[in-house]
Amino acid sequence: MLNSILSGKKLILGSGSPRRSFFLKELGLDFETRLKETEEIYPERLKKKQISEYLALQKAEPFKEELKENEILITADTIVWHENDALGKPKSKEEAVQMLQSLSNKTHEVISSVALTSLQDQIVFSDLTRVTFKKLNEEEINYYVDNYKPFDKAGGYGIQEWIGYIGVTDIEGSYFNVMGFPVQKFYETLRQF
Amino acid sequence: MLNSILSGKKLILGSGSPRRSFFLKELGLDFETRLKETEEIYPERLKKKQISEYLALQKAEPFKEELKENEILITADTIVWHENDALGKPKSKEEAVQMLQSLSNKTHEVISSVALTSLQDQIVFSDLTRVTFKKLNEEEINYYVDNYKPFDKAGGYGIQEWIGYIGVTDIEGSYFNVMGFPVQKFYETLRQF
Repeated sequence: MLNSILSGKKLILGSGSPRRSFFLKELGLDFETRLKETEEIYPERLKKKQISEYLALQKAEPFKEELKENEILITADTIVWHENDALGKPKSKEEAVQMLQSLSNKTHEVISSVALTSLQDQIVFSDLTRVTFKKLNEEEINYYVDNYKPFDKAGGYGIQEWIGYIGVTDIEGSYFNVMGFPVQKFYETLRQF
Repeated sequence: MLNSILSGKKLILGSGSPRRSFFLKELGLDFETRLKETEEIYPERLKKKQISEYLALQKAEPFKEELKENEILITADTIVWHENDALGKPKSKEEAVQMLQSLSNKTHEVISSVALTSLQDQIVFSDLTRVTFKKLNEEEINYYVDNYKPFDKAGGYGIQEWIGYIGVTDIEGSYFNVMGFPVQKFYETLRQF
């Protein structure tokens, strides 16, 4: 149904995330994936959605010169904001364990930003979800990190994995946003782009 | 990991729901599925979780005489509570469309109840999630009902399907509970059963 709304525009997904590609498919959209390397570096003064919006826009840059007339590029970034700090992807088992310990028994924020870029236009939007973990014990954290190796996930966890099932007591906002793609806002924004 | 917590107990899932079976697998639990027919009828005076708890317990009845010493039976029920009424499964396209129209642009409650039954003991618990839909238009509702045929779903929708992606703006509580299984509460309760 959405494809008719696109009226001849072609969607390019500039992200290697399997979850973002999953949502585009579930929406029933045709798209092509293109990948370019970007370093995920941002000015230190930025906070919360300023960071993910900066990075989503930043990720669009290397695509711009190749973009064609009828194409809409989608780039995105997700951060976990906790205790006044952005948690990135853990680089080691120790770091993953530490992140989960810091999230345990507390509420944190997950912010995903999406940039839509065409030759004529560019917009970026964000969605924020609050996620609450129960008190995770050492055995649970170790079991998860050893078995799921969450090194590609901001904050060191995937809500759609074991730790999400046993550990997340409450969310406020969009669930899919926590998975890395604010799909409802994306749908509304794309219809108007 | 949970299997060790069960210490020799055997789990029996008394539900044909593919989503409930999915969550037990994701938790890493061994279980056997057994099916018995129950009519989903409850006293009219019941409201909200009284209904789903009544039905979850009711569904355990036909299994009781066959239950063995080391077995724990899981039965469950999910209802959609909206404008002081429980929405069941739609029986026709018209009813599904009507249900979605009534949910559009409003917040409703999804309540899932789970009963754990052994020869010695029985408990039932519930979880409640508030779900908000954007204003759904006729084209969206028809597209969803025609393509997804949500006749096995209370309230006429699956949050993990197209209509959930494009239509749900906000949830408060457990997402998995909306899918029919309060997995986090189940995990905590099972550990103490």
